[in-house]
Amino acid sequence: MELVQRKRAISRTGILAVALLTLGFLFLRPLIAGAADMVEGETQFVLNTFAFLVWGGLVMWMAAGFTMLESGAVRTKNASMICLKNIGVYSISGLAYYIIGYNLMYVDVGSVIGSFQLLYSTSTSEIALLGGDAGAAAEVVSNGYAVMSDWFFQMVFVATTASIVSGAIAERVKMWAFFLFTLLLTAFIYPVVGAWTWGGGWLAEMGFKDFAGSTIVHSTGGWAALAGLLVIGPRLGKFRKDGTVKPTPPSNVLIVTLGVFILWLGWFGFNGGSQLALGSAFDAVGMSNVIVNTNLAAAAGVVAALAVSRSILGKMDLFAGLNGAIAGLVSITAGPDIIDHWWAIIIGAVGGVLCTAGIKLLENLKIDDVVGAIPAHLLCGIWGTLAASIAAGASFGVQLLGVVSVAVFVFVVSYIVWRLIAMTVGLRVSAQAERMGQDTAELGIESYPEFVLMPEHFGDED
Amino acid sequence: MELVQRKRAISRTGILAVALLTLGFLFLRPLIAGAADMVEGETQFVLNTFAFLVWGGLVMWMAAGFTMLESGAVRTKNASMICLKNIGVYSISGLAYYIIGYNLMYVDVGSVIGSFQLLYSTSTSEIALLGGDAGAAAEVVSNGYAVMSDWFFQMVFVATTASIVSGAIAERVKMWAFFLFTLLLTAFIYPVVGAWTWGGGWLAEMGFKDFAGSTIVHSTGGWAALAGLLVIGPRLGKFRKDGTVKPTPPSNVLIVTLGVFILWLGWFGFNGGSQLALGSAFDAVGMSNVIVNTNLAAAAGVVAALAVSRSILGKMDLFAGLNGAIAGLVSITAGPDIIDHWWAIIIGAVGGVLCTAGIKLLENLKIDDVVGAIPAHLLCGIWGTLAASIAAGASFGVQLLGVVSVAVFVFVVSYIVWRLIAMTVGLRVSAQAERMGQDTAELGIESYPEFVLMPEHFGDED
Amino acid sequence: MELVQRKRAISRTGILAVALLTLGFLFLRPLIAGAADMVEGETQFVLNTFAFLVWGGLVMWMAAGFTMLESGAVRTKNASMICLKNIGVYSISGLAYYIIGYNLMYVDVGSVIGSFQLLYSTSTSEIALLGGDAGAAAEVVSNGYAVMSDWFFQMVFVATTASIVSGAIAERVKMWAFFLFTLLLTAFIYPVVGAWTWGGGWLAEMGFKDFAGSTIVHSTGGWAALAGLLVIGPRLGKFRKDGTVKPTPPSNVLIVTLGVFILWLGWFGFNGGSQLALGSAFDAVGMSNVIVNTNLAAAAGVVAALAVSRSILGKMDLFAGLNGAIAGLVSITAGPDIIDHWWAIIIGAVGGVLCTAGIKLLENLKIDDVVGAIPAHLLCGIWGTLAASIAAGASFGVQLLGVVSVAVFVFVVSYIVWRLIAMTVGLRVSAQAERMGQDTAELGIESYPEFVLMPEHFGDED
Repeated sequence: MELVQRKRAISRTGILAVALLTLGFLFLRPLIAGAADMVEGETQFVLNTFAFLVWGGLVMWMAAGFTMLESGAVRTKNASMICLKNIGVYSISGLAYYIIGYNLMYVDVGSVIGSFQLLYSTSTSEIALLGGDAGAAAEVVSNGYAVMSDWFFQMVFVATTASIVSGAIAERVKMWAFFLFTLLLTAFIYPVVGAWTWGGGWLAEMGFKDFAGSTIVHSTGGWAALAGLLVIGPRLGKFRKDGTVKPTPPSNVLIVTLGVFILWLGWFGFNGGSQLALGSAFDAVGMSNVIVNTNLAAAAGVVAALAVSRSILGKMDLFAGLNGAIAGLVSITAGPDIIDHWWAIIIGAVGGVLCTAGIKLLENLKIDDVVGAIPAHLLCGIWGTLAASIAAGASFGVQLLGVVSVAVFVFVVSYIVWRLIAMTVGLRVSAQAERMGQDTAELGIESYPEFVLMPEHFGDED
Repeated sequence: MELVQRKRAISRTGILAVALLTLGFLFLRPLIAGAADMVEGETQFVLNTFAFLVWGGLVMWMAAGFTMLESGAVRTKNASMICLKNIGVYSISGLAYYIIGYNLMYVDVGSVIGSFQLLYSTSTSEIALLGGDAGAAAEVVSNGYAVMSDWFFQMVFVATTASIVSGAIAERVKMWAFFLFTLLLTAFIYPVVGAWTWGGGWLAEMGFKDFAGSTIVHSTGGWAALAGLLVIGPRLGKFRKDGTVKPTPPSNVLIVTLGVFILWLGWFGFNGGSQLALGSAFDAVGMSNVIVNTNLAAAAGVVAALAVSRSILGKMDLFAGLNGAIAGLVSITAGPDIIDHWWAIIIGAVGGVLCTAGIKLLENLKIDDVVGAIPAHLLCGIWGTLAASIAAGASFGVQLLGVVSVAVFVFVVSYIVWRLIAMTVGLRVSAQAERMGQDTAELGIESYPEFVLMPEHFGDED
Repeated sequence: MELVQRKRAISRTGILAVALLTLGFLFLRPLIAGAADMVEGETQFVLNTFAFLVWGGLVMWMAAGFTMLESGAVRTKNASMICLKNIGVYSISGLAYYIIGYNLMYVDVGSVIGSFQLLYSTSTSEIALLGGDAGAAAEVVSNGYAVMSDWFFQMVFVATTASIVSGAIAERVKMWAFFLFTLLLTAFIYPVVGAWTWGGGWLAEMGFKDFAGSTIVHSTGGWAALAGLLVIGPRLGKFRKDGTVKPTPPSNVLIVTLGVFILWLGWFGFNGGSQLALGSAFDAVGMSNVIVNTNLAAAAGVVAALAVSRSILGKMDLFAGLNGAIAGLVSITAGPDIIDHWWAIIIGAVGGVLCTAGIKLLENLKIDDVVGAIPAHLLCGIWGTLAASIAAGASFGVQLLGVVSVAVFVFVVSYIVWRLIAMTVGLRVSAQAERMGQDTAELGIESYPEFVLMPEHFGDED
């Protein structure tokens, strides 16, 4: 566009002026490149970096959202443990990704994995610039964004993946066993999936599209959780011998709702920030569309889930409605850059229905997913990834290949890891600790020590 | 400033150089326009857009604030229903505003209403740019901001309007009736008010000033709520036959407080983002003043409300203090761009007093506003709109005309709609459901199923 | 710098073709200076300002974090009072800092204190610009950022300082006494410490480094709290006659956890925003490193605190883990701009251990700090300030001098103020009010009036 404008200007000149200006052009060109009205190099750099930091901050906030959703959803007797697990997950993820994960995912990635070197750091040119060498600025700027702002944005994604697992297998997994799995998930499993895709590996080369991680983040978390669920089994008494299911409604609905609002807000950063740049009108327009589609899909997920909850679950179900928001959000995450916004509504609405049906399906399969992580993150992650081929121009075959490859890799490795943990340090708390609750049994505290709580009915177990 | 500098440079030249440079100027000027130190076209576009997205995200967060404020303020037996209503309100608002509301408010607005076309979308030039046509960038940039970033920012405002209603008429309105009203409010009533004002209609042409919506958002929500209150009547037992008022303190003070903090934070986006641009020093300065005034008014509202609560309400009242923050925020919202910051303190403090007095007044009028939405949003919305004529240079007559016109339109239409809903699908839950609580009666859940709750006293009703 | 460059360009002049171009250079250069790819004046201004506003908003959010942390940590019977105190603290801080505090800290600072003039306001050039005088833009831009955006960012820091105090002395201090202290802390004590350092006073001249306030904010709050603790004494029954300590676990663990996540998020603004600029690659890189180090230190604080909690406190302690996050954050705050990120891990981990040990130490000293503010903010504030000499290049001697000077000034003045308050308006509630709880005794409400609470054991007091 810039060049076109220049040509037009020149075509209007007289002879002398052309001569003068040609000379002027030759030497001034480096100075005026991008001068007219485009965002320039250093400004782009700053804007790209700031977008990573602001949106990354919002994605970090999702860790609080998962914590609230999960701790409000479990029995009161396990709510403190969920708090601890979640702040632990966020901490461990951040450290593991710094120590090895990012390098495996993004540094010198071949087809399947990156570099095994330890620690990650700012570039030498950035260090020089910070040290006062203004001459390093050009090289710094040529990177497009501050090195660590990208690291920060990537780090909060791995934390999200790990958060998904904790809710599904809550109320019976040992804390240390869970932290050990988290370490392996964030230091190895997730980075490998990431290397195949965002890191530029074999799936990326085939054209696999997953804008912000329906598969890479949400299905990865979902498959890891499902493997854990199959190894650890349901909570005591959840599935009764007579075939009925013990209802375990959220113990603190307000806190669950708060968690969902936090996640919804954070998702603007999750998807919007995945535009990965803010240095041009193109990126600003793209980011705006992404955020609007994200919101429309979530809204449609809520309305659809509420609408079908009575027929699927037998009652207007608040928890289904809240999960509908998550379902809509996960569903749009693979392709939030679609142009036609009404597609976002359809994709989100289908997600809301799928998730509600998935809650019922898991019950029928006697898989005890405490917070509905499998329907919301795994089912909708798959749906969203495939949907990106309908509305956002990706190849269905490649999308399916991506879904299946990640499924096989994550599920198999996770299953083995969960089994190994079960065989060594042990995976599940004792039946007595489970009955008593992990808060008292493992932490020696109660979530609300001054509230009088309902006595639990212990006659219920198998 | 740019031109002045150029002139100065020329005055220092010799004769020949002037000749050369004049020619150079003629042809280079398009290239270097804005080069010296002004924010340029595309950079402006990006900054404007990013401001809409970031501040819009914070306004969305206000939906969580309303949810927490309201669900913590109602009886425990209705708290889950409030959660459901609020996530429903936010979802329905966003869809309704996408399907029709925005077009009614902003597209081809004559004097009173915009276009009745369905759906809203990105501009064709933006679609071209996203499709790879770099030549479309100039037209995209000439719009000043990404089309959908503005839509996003406007959408979160309609959601705020709708949120105000849910708290006032809580604990007795049927869920579907409320959702139906929300749909009409956000698809039609609010957009019409918006068309008159921000959309450029007749009130805007007269010079009506309402920077971020003291009237357009808060009074509109307040009048709609008041109409609902008059149609639906007070909760059973709230106003006793002996003339006393049954106290209904918040059931979860911490959650109410959290809600107020969320709203306070979100208001920085609400008012700051209403500067509507960030592409110049003018806008950056304006936005800074707006945010500072917003904070000062809220702080003054808290202090003033606490100071008068003992004399008005008979005790130092936390809920009055918390509502004082909202009152200060609503009051400053029509004119947060005032230059003298101490005016913000006065406006906020008066708002805090008004709101506290309004709580008492409503009780005396036997109007049962569960969360104090009328005093905080309606009374202070009126006060703020009129105050903008004192401190921010608006005409008192026009401000008053705006207040009255919006009052008549919103109240009358809302009253009719509430009546129609009451006559058709029914507005109020059965007395039995109200006694039992909507959570159990309509949703089949409890907010805190494991906490032992106080038995309700049922002897109290009229 | 610009002028110097112009001079240098002129000195390089040569003969003919060179003559043309050099002439072109001479006169066009002022126009195109910075055109190539540097961030220009007004763009810098906008970016700097926006960073202050966005990050300042996040720091305001920390007020909600402290409120949640503290109100979840105290006995249920005092939780509403903590909510009131915290919204009061934030309001009073903002007003006091507007009326006098900022001027004392930043305006015409000599060695020890700034100006005693009242009120603060936008510059005259900004007022002219807002009034339509485009010619004022150059002077406005030359300030580097909008005047009030800086005020906003500074104001939220004083609010943080005041928040630290409320948690430590909770559950027995009178509300008005506490508000009076808050007024003096935010109008005078903190501004004086600030004048010595960020205001450019004597400690700044010696090279004292405290990037975002380990000492200036956190230790100041900590010393003020410690003085208060010594004057007011422990809660009734906390330290029993037989030498044992009455356990007082958090009454609402989920809310405490939420508070910690809010603080963690807010700290990205606290430290990241303290880069104080975003108008260059240098600042964008610096800000990114700061935020990454902040996150790493917090994560390390959590892991370290959990790891040592069993050996120090006798059990895996969630509250220690949560405080570990705060400890890591406070510890890195003096020098989050270190280049080697693994230093952030070490500094944060040491902070986590120190904080956990500090909790035990205070118990042994029979100092009753309800929320662990002294270990987290004071101990780690000192550690962080000294650590900045290890990893971030500051002089150990100067850092120590800063720590000691601030300690002496804040502790002595605070102690006198607390004593004076105790002697005049009274500092502590009656024993009866303390037993009953401040919510009922002073506010006439309960935090959760509908939940059945455990009866308190009153036989416990000394």
